[in-house]
Amino acid sequence: MTVVRSTLPDAAREVAGEALQSTLVDLLGISLVGKQAHWNIVGPRFRSIHLQLDEVVATARTYSDTVAERAAALGLPPDGRPETIAAAYALPGAKEGWLRDDEVVRLMVETLESAIGRLRERIDATDKPDPVTQDLLIGITAELEKQRWMFEAENWPRD
Amino acid sequence: MTVVRSTLPDAAREVAGEALQSTLVDLLGISLVGKQAHWNIVGPRFRSIHLQLDEVVATARTYSDTVAERAAALGLPPDGRPETIAAAYALPGAKEGWLRDDEVVRLMVETLESAIGRLRERIDATDKPDPVTQDLLIGITAELEKQRWMFEAENWPRD
Amino acid sequence: MTVVRSTLPDAAREVAGEALQSTLVDLLGISLVGKQAHWNIVGPRFRSIHLQLDEVVATARTYSDTVAERAAALGLPPDGRPETIAAAYALPGAKEGWLRDDEVVRLMVETLESAIGRLRERIDATDKPDPVTQDLLIGITAELEKQRWMFEAENWPRD
Amino acid sequence: MTVVRSTLPDAAREVAGEALQSTLVDLLGISLVGKQAHWNIVGPRFRSIHLQLDEVVATARTYSDTVAERAAALGLPPDGRPETIAAAYALPGAKEGWLRDDEVVRLMVETLESAIGRLRERIDATDKPDPVTQDLLIGITAELEKQRWMFEAENWPRD
Amino acid sequence: MTVVRSTLPDAAREVAGEALQSTLVDLLGISLVGKQAHWNIVGPRFRSIHLQLDEVVATARTYSDTVAERAAALGLPPDGRPETIAAAYALPGAKEGWLRDDEVVRLMVETLESAIGRLRERIDATDKPDPVTQDLLIGITAELEKQRWMFEAENWPRD
Amino acid sequence: MTVVRSTLPDAAREVAGEALQSTLVDLLGISLVGKQAHWNIVGPRFRSIHLQLDEVVATARTYSDTVAERAAALGLPPDGRPETIAAAYALPGAKEGWLRDDEVVRLMVETLESAIGRLRERIDATDKPDPVTQDLLIGITAELEKQRWMFEAENWPRD
Amino acid sequence: MTVVRSTLPDAAREVAGEALQSTLVDLLGISLVGKQAHWNIVGPRFRSIHLQLDEVVATARTYSDTVAERAAALGLPPDGRPETIAAAYALPGAKEGWLRDDEVVRLMVETLESAIGRLRERIDATDKPDPVTQDLLIGITAELEKQRWMFEAENWPRD
Amino acid sequence: MTVVRSTLPDAAREVAGEALQSTLVDLLGISLVGKQAHWNIVGPRFRSIHLQLDEVVATARTYSDTVAERAAALGLPPDGRPETIAAAYALPGAKEGWLRDDEVVRLMVETLESAIGRLRERIDATDKPDPVTQDLLIGITAELEKQRWMFEAENWPRD
Amino acid sequence: MTVVRSTLPDAAREVAGEALQSTLVDLLGISLVGKQAHWNIVGPRFRSIHLQLDEVVATARTYSDTVAERAAALGLPPDGRPETIAAAYALPGAKEGWLRDDEVVRLMVETLESAIGRLRERIDATDKPDPVTQDLLIGITAELEKQRWMFEAENWPRD
Amino acid sequence: MTVVRSTLPDAAREVAGEALQSTLVDLLGISLVGKQAHWNIVGPRFRSIHLQLDEVVATARTYSDTVAERAAALGLPPDGRPETIAAAYALPGAKEGWLRDDEVVRLMVETLESAIGRLRERIDATDKPDPVTQDLLIGITAELEKQRWMFEAENWPRD
Amino acid sequence: MTVVRSTLPDAAREVAGEALQSTLVDLLGISLVGKQAHWNIVGPRFRSIHLQLDEVVATARTYSDTVAERAAALGLPPDGRPETIAAAYALPGAKEGWLRDDEVVRLMVETLESAIGRLRERIDATDKPDPVTQDLLIGITAELEKQRWMFEAENWPRD
Amino acid sequence: MTVVRSTLPDAAREVAGEALQSTLVDLLGISLVGKQAHWNIVGPRFRSIHLQLDEVVATARTYSDTVAERAAALGLPPDGRPETIAAAYALPGAKEGWLRDDEVVRLMVETLESAIGRLRERIDATDKPDPVTQDLLIGITAELEKQRWMFEAENWPRD
Repeated sequence: MTVVRSTLPDAAREVAGEALQSTLVDLLGISLVGKQAHWNIVGPRFRSIHLQLDEVVATARTYSDTVAERAAALGLPPDGRPETIAAAYALPGAKEGWLRDDEVVRLMVETLESAIGRLRERIDATDKPDPVTQDLLIGITAELEKQRWMFEAENWPRD
Repeated sequence: MTVVRSTLPDAAREVAGEALQSTLVDLLGISLVGKQAHWNIVGPRFRSIHLQLDEVVATARTYSDTVAERAAALGLPPDGRPETIAAAYALPGAKEGWLRDDEVVRLMVETLESAIGRLRERIDATDKPDPVTQDLLIGITAELEKQRWMFEAENWPRD
Repeated sequence: MTVVRSTLPDAAREVAGEALQSTLVDLLGISLVGKQAHWNIVGPRFRSIHLQLDEVVATARTYSDTVAERAAALGLPPDGRPETIAAAYALPGAKEGWLRDDEVVRLMVETLESAIGRLRERIDATDKPDPVTQDLLIGITAELEKQRWMFEAENWPRD
Repeated sequence: MTVVRSTLPDAAREVAGEALQSTLVDLLGISLVGKQAHWNIVGPRFRSIHLQLDEVVATARTYSDTVAERAAALGLPPDGRPETIAAAYALPGAKEGWLRDDEVVRLMVETLESAIGRLRERIDATDKPDPVTQDLLIGITAELEKQRWMFEAENWPRD
Repeated sequence: MTVVRSTLPDAAREVAGEALQSTLVDLLGISLVGKQAHWNIVGPRFRSIHLQLDEVVATARTYSDTVAERAAALGLPPDGRPETIAAAYALPGAKEGWLRDDEVVRLMVETLESAIGRLRERIDATDKPDPVTQDLLIGITAELEKQRWMFEAENWPRD
Repeated sequence: MTVVRSTLPDAAREVAGEALQSTLVDLLGISLVGKQAHWNIVGPRFRSIHLQLDEVVATARTYSDTVAERAAALGLPPDGRPETIAAAYALPGAKEGWLRDDEVVRLMVETLESAIGRLRERIDATDKPDPVTQDLLIGITAELEKQRWMFEAENWPRD
Repeated sequence: MTVVRSTLPDAAREVAGEALQSTLVDLLGISLVGKQAHWNIVGPRFRSIHLQLDEVVATARTYSDTVAERAAALGLPPDGRPETIAAAYALPGAKEGWLRDDEVVRLMVETLESAIGRLRERIDATDKPDPVTQDLLIGITAELEKQRWMFEAENWPRD
Repeated sequence: MTVVRSTLPDAAREVAGEALQSTLVDLLGISLVGKQAHWNIVGPRFRSIHLQLDEVVATARTYSDTVAERAAALGLPPDGRPETIAAAYALPGAKEGWLRDDEVVRLMVETLESAIGRLRERIDATDKPDPVTQDLLIGITAELEKQRWMFEAENWPRD
Repeated sequence: MTVVRSTLPDAAREVAGEALQSTLVDLLGISLVGKQAHWNIVGPRFRSIHLQLDEVVATARTYSDTVAERAAALGLPPDGRPETIAAAYALPGAKEGWLRDDEVVRLMVETLESAIGRLRERIDATDKPDPVTQDLLIGITAELEKQRWMFEAENWPRD
Repeated sequence: MTVVRSTLPDAAREVAGEALQSTLVDLLGISLVGKQAHWNIVGPRFRSIHLQLDEVVATARTYSDTVAERAAALGLPPDGRPETIAAAYALPGAKEGWLRDDEVVRLMVETLESAIGRLRERIDATDKPDPVTQDLLIGITAELEKQRWMFEAENWPRD
Repeated sequence: MTVVRSTLPDAAREVAGEALQSTLVDLLGISLVGKQAHWNIVGPRFRSIHLQLDEVVATARTYSDTVAERAAALGLPPDGRPETIAAAYALPGAKEGWLRDDEVVRLMVETLESAIGRLRERIDATDKPDPVTQDLLIGITAELEKQRWMFEAENWPRD
Repeated sequence: MTVVRSTLPDAAREVAGEALQSTLVDLLGISLVGKQAHWNIVGPRFRSIHLQLDEVVATARTYSDTVAERAAALGLPPDGRPETIAAAYALPGAKEGWLRDDEVVRLMVETLESAIGRLRERIDATDKPDPVTQDLLIGITAELEKQRWMFEAENWPRD
């Protein structure tokens, strides 16, 4: 039985739904991995990266809320439970224990780069089915690309 | 090799470390389950519980940060990665899809009750080894007991 | 005689102008109907819907200002006079007198649903003539869809 | 059937109710006409009058809320629907299209002057029946008289 | 011996003094009963009434301060001691223990209704002796009537 | 020639005008004398009275603006020039040079008491001619009576 | 029948419950007596003690809320009704009428001192039964001791 | 008898004292004349000059406080009483009644120009006797010169 | 050697890069020309245009930052050096010395109109290569069109 | 002669007093040494450590106030005079002149580590005599341990 | 023809005018070069210098406004157009493209050092002609010297 | 070896350096002595002087930071270590233990008076060598002279 009806036709809703659910998992994963790095980082650049990671986490948390409420607004129950994230998370993750500052910078560059690549595919896919969802994904991409640049600029010269 | 040295003797550090790591998992789990319910709730009490859940999530996020930084401060790298939460989370969780408002209330009462029982054991265990950690756990317990009461008062008469 | 010159060619300006003017009437109408319900609602969910309606009204007022100034910026004088609204308003309206809380919820779901349908047609129509106007209409649609969902979730199970 | 009981006797309630309902229509009308002028004004004093009109609108909106809630508090459902405003609005209105700055000033002086005259009659009428309502009308009058003066001072020497 | 001299003649001061002292007791009583209900309420409308009661308490506390300082300003020492409130409080009170949400709503309607009736008598009595005091009592009545309406609207249909 | 027309008949305007003009002079005078005392006070209660005087000055400045704009709104040009204040000020003033803290307290009690007496006469005089002006004078009186009480309470036992 | 279940065993709950209920009465009593003194104080130190008393009242009100909600969270309905306070209040109270500033200071020192002595007994009693409640009582004691010191320092040399 | 001792030798104190006292009179006079113009201005530039005058008044009030407290700090009781201002004020003043907007602009240019000329003489005079006072006068001059420019730019082309 | 890698293919990056770099020069130029006018304007509308120009400058500065950081995020170093702006700036500029208010208005209309025309070409060009960049340019255009309308409405009837 | 009476028995007061006085000296010393490093640090990590040191100083200043007021509240006059700090300060100090960034990090790790060791002894000593003081010392320890961790994480790999 | 008259004699005005105009060019140049570095910096100190540069830019922008308005207040039209800055800027500039973090630090040290040297000459030159202008230049120098120190401390040991 | 280069010639730098270092010691000493008095004061004026002392301490702390950073900006490492303050502090200090309120007032008058005298000598000394440093010392003197007046006004009649 349908609980919340959708304002989109079925085919369009399916495309938008997949784009939103996989973006939700990516963002919740980034928020957890970002906090993990925030707590475990060691090295001479500790403080400035410790602070920058909290900006990434705040961004990821805010957008995960927007994405999940968009899914619900389309009649699709979003899924952000711990077991779902663990099963579906496909971006680079953190190893256990303390992390050197240069490891953290490299991890964040790779994680964000991977997330951006996946988002650009979803921007293409949602162009016709639902421009409202597409517009939301464009905004997230712009923000993550800015964060990625900052970590990469920090990482120069690359090891 | 030790990266961050501890200010506690080894035995005390082990007890405090276990209490903090398991509390971290409980709080991160509550924050994810609380958001899941925040997005998927349906029914006539939608709005007021939708808002109350965000207060629970904010509380859990703030304390998870405090707990993890306390662990790091004792020389123990905290672990809040997605795979760790999924493996170690032992409180009641949410089922998939839309959730009726009365299901949500009952879920939150049970989840918080279970978390409180585990916290009270850790308060006993850390009394001698590290009163600083104990004091932090007492503060978390007081807050979660208040949240639990509010959901239970909402749930009366009990079904 | 032209008072404010347009930066768009004539045909494009006409399409954008019609989309903006009809959106202006819809939004001003929603702001008045929403206040009417805010004042006349009775029933056990009085307080939480009373507050939620003020959010709808604030949204509608803010966007009506943006839409009207966009029209003026394109060289088209917007029309939001009482007699214009009364004549052109085509969404569901409120009956006279006190309104039961469930009547209010149903009214808002229908009114917003109808407004969203009309906005989606204007999004299509303005795609080529003026992507700046289209972008504005997309943003309004996203917000109204979120509001509609909240009222519908509140209305479950449907009577 | 009575929905919200009144704390006033019937005769007093009727007088207060009429005063509040007609004031509500005047204020909602002023808020719409003021916005119309805010958007369509042209001429060398554009900016400072554009801003001043928003103060009039803000005043009218705030007082319309107070007036309507006072009516409800007396057990009388207020009526601020678009069709009611269009039918009952008796103050000077705006012509269609762009408005020259001096036309706007003259329009606001006349509209406010007319509204003030009607308010003073209601102040007299409500003196005995309900001093609480009268006190509210007095406050509105003082504010509108101040606004009227500012437009008139702006309008000097009169054309 | 007179400690603080009055700016009113003796007869006028006596009337104003009685009106202010009995209003003070009513308001302090409402603030205590409102908190009692805030803490002991149970049932499905827990959260929204729990919050609404805090607004009543805040209103009653603010006005009790204004009323008491007005008495002092007239040279009359106000009396708000626990024993005075217990002895002089004449509005409906709360029973011991948990309170069902519908009981709370009914209690607040009755308590506010009773307080409003007493205030209207004092408005009449102070008209000639001291228009400054009367003006203050009118303001309090308007606010309590608004609060009463909100609880009564919540209570419909009446049991 | 009339510059700003009045909304009051001539006789009423004259009464209201005199009340407002003389109140304006009293308030501007109090603001200057209050500052004089703020700067020249000496003695053990220096700090707490130094601060309290600034509250009196702020009150007097705010009300002088309201009173003068009310006069202008009635079509009467207010007069607050230095030479007018010096010629028309009829309340107790400050002597030259340093002022002992108890002298300051006594000065403020007498100045405010005198101002209040004059205001009560104007409240009576404006009752029929212009209740809007009367309402403004009532508000000023309440505030000055509160300030007077505070200085008198400070002044006990009286010397 | 139990309405809100407790997370404590019965014996522990009884001890914590008594400590919280008697603390609630003490704090509500202090808030009323503090306001009484705030309004009735006269003498040369009027202003600075008048302000300090409002800080005591704010503290007592905030903690009374925390204490009562803690009792409810433990499944014990708190009792703060006027008649309960009047019957159970056991700290020094205020006499009727104006109060000299030195009387006020002495009253507050004695009242706070007595409250602190009672709180320290409850800190002992709750140590084993409920460290969470004990932690709350400790925080209250620290704050009241600081307030007591300020009044006592003010009161030197003692009369 | 000396009440507040000076930290300057007698000759230096006399020069600084005269500079500060005459600056105090100028600033208090400007604040009163500025308000007079703020209330009595009429003409098409009413609103923007009405607002600009309030900035001049705020500047003059703030600096008059600084100047007077500086005099007191040097052991010289400042004199800002109404009769002193009326007797000592030497800058251009306002005529009685309504003021045309261009008259107001010309008045402010002349008043500020005259005040600046007098301040520059005092800057020379205090250079050796008290560089602390000189520094304060320099800051006032900079601010008044900026205000003067704005009125003069407004006044172009000059009549 | 590449310093910051791009997330776009080479051809797309080149198009987006040219659009961003030329927009950066336009915005920095507008911010400098707007300030030049802000400082040098004279005439009867001095104050209201003086203030409006600061809004244009704030807009241009904020967007220049967004545009430059977007370029960097795509791996393209932005160039906003003085010599680059002077060489590449292609919009209308300001003449030396004082500027009459009507000259300023005309200058701003022309400058913004020219910038808008260039932005619309870039919106077309970036549609396929990078929708994220396009979305940013659309937002800038909407804001500049609104600013242009305000200056043009101010400029009516055109000389 | 006793000036401020204690609420603790003599023996308990002596223990608490010694703990508080020595903590006061440690904290004031840390605040001075932290500022010394804040001003004299040089090296590539200048900015981020410069800012972090100000957080340590702010923490130390806030707690020194709390500790000293707690001593006074127990009837023990605290001693934070320059000569006392210089004589009693027993933690590592700073050498004269510029300090390299890595020297600063090592100094802060050692200073905080030493302070924490001393605090833990005082936590043991005050457990029975005064749990309120103990609770305060626990809070300080938690905060300093967090600060120490941050400097140590910054210092890795250790030289 | 003179547009804005000066309050300074001609010779003094010329000296002050040259000092202000050349300071304006320096500050606008620093604001552009600072932003250029803010966008193009790469290397491990990216984040903390990226933020520090924005403080330099904010400082330079604020002072350029003050300096330009001071020139206008003296009757001298300031010149901050792009072509003027490019022609007159005489401080070290930035090379094209990405900038290594150590290059940025060295650039800012040299640019600020050069600006300070030029400011000190202008402080000497304006001492007699206009102490008000001199006071402004002193304030700018103090701020730039503080910024220079911070970059130089960051740059140690010098390469 | 020079670590931070100076922008002043050697002789000038030496004079400025001595003035800044001795001012730093005076201000840090005042901040410690002020806190000592803040904590140990007893007597009827406890509260208002307790608060006033915190303003002195805040002033001294803020200026000590400015003075030390100015020294560093000139290439001179400031010295504010505990042992340096104890050795170099030459102003009146506090005796051990409780301090009567009149003793505190007298102590602050003397301490500030002594500091002002020393500052005026440094103002003379730095006039030629560094007007930027002189300007800073002038600002500190003005603030301390204002604080001294307030304590002296409080102290009248002098014992």
